[in-house]
Amino acid sequence: MSKIITISRQFGSGGREIGEKLAKKLGIPFYDKELITRAAKESGFSEKVFENVEKKSVNSLLYSIAMGMNAYGNQDIGFTHLSLDDQVYLAQTNVIRKIASEGPSVIVGRCADYILRDHSDAVHVFIWADLAFRKERVINIYKMPEEKAEENILKYDKRRANYYNYHTGEKWGKAENYHLSIRSDYVGIDNSVELIADYINRKGKA
Amino acid sequence: MSKIITISRQFGSGGREIGEKLAKKLGIPFYDKELITRAAKESGFSEKVFENVEKKSVNSLLYSIAMGMNAYGNQDIGFTHLSLDDQVYLAQTNVIRKIASEGPSVIVGRCADYILRDHSDAVHVFIWADLAFRKERVINIYKMPEEKAEENILKYDKRRANYYNYHTGEKWGKAENYHLSIRSDYVGIDNSVELIADYINRKGKA
Repeated sequence: MSKIITISRQFGSGGREIGEKLAKKLGIPFYDKELITRAAKESGFSEKVFENVEKKSVNSLLYSIAMGMNAYGNQDIGFTHLSLDDQVYLAQTNVIRKIASEGPSVIVGRCADYILRDHSDAVHVFIWADLAFRKERVINIYKMPEEKAEENILKYDKRRANYYNYHTGEKWGKAENYHLSIRSDYVGIDNSVELIADYINRKGKA
Repeated sequence: MSKIITISRQFGSGGREIGEKLAKKLGIPFYDKELITRAAKESGFSEKVFENVEKKSVNSLLYSIAMGMNAYGNQDIGFTHLSLDDQVYLAQTNVIRKIASEGPSVIVGRCADYILRDHSDAVHVFIWADLAFRKERVINIYKMPEEKAEENILKYDKRRANYYNYHTGEKWGKAENYHLSIRSDYVGIDNSVELIADYINRKGKA
């Protein structure tokens, strides 16, 4: 099972934990924050800049204005004409492609499903969960204040959706963009890991 | 495992066959065309009328105009003020609720996932597949002429999306509306059946 597995996930759904456990189970590298660090090092941008990109995308209209609309809509645009945010996205794209060329891995977030959409060894997974489950997770695991939990979950999801939609021109969370999409609270984190591994294992076994 | 499983599916993805095999495996009733028949009989509408409803929804704009816009947006609208198409949809809704009240079953299509969205025993599944796989299926199984296959697949999917979006106000194929979404061509029909059964079985087993 030599695969690259990308995981997209709702905030608090356990997608990151599922990805980490899946990578451990398969004995392959796991990329998340590490991805940013690596991209930052290779491109010369600071980690701080990378972290700011996703935060900026909270308001899609303001974000588009700030970015001078979608740079990918323009023909023959040079790298130097791209906004800093777009340059960061391109640097991340290069890193994700490089990781994919190196062998099996689990990559969480960063539009990896879109970037590797034509990669023949990639399997794309989406994890979502009931709001109550997510609230419990962010309160207990991320130690988020209870009164802020729901508001933050919705805010972070909106950021992720805007970031994804802006950079890919696709809709975040559309079933058709993922080989497998799982509601994690129904079966729990560990069963979700098993289900993904099982799905991949069943390929070619009628 | 006493569940009601709804299956939404792209045209040609094998969703209907998966549903039928799943029902057989679990030893529970399967509803698809039978659902229409039953709804028709109970409400007094002819089968012919029911079959025309989905066909009409091929063009969402024309459909909305024909339906006098979204009837559910109006307050206190009486059943007699609904268009024939909306009355048919309501009759189907009643039938689906009745089926769900009778015990476990597999229900394919007809917005059943939306109609039973608050049903505590329901598990909602979406099946999609690569276009090449779907073309092969509609040519070999439905005996569709090869030169018409792709056009028809896209047309039928558009109908399903319009029908769903119009009646539910939701987006057809949004991962968040299904417990599980599977790309069927990657693992095949029988493995998809096993994966759904496995997902349901894992509930409550940490």
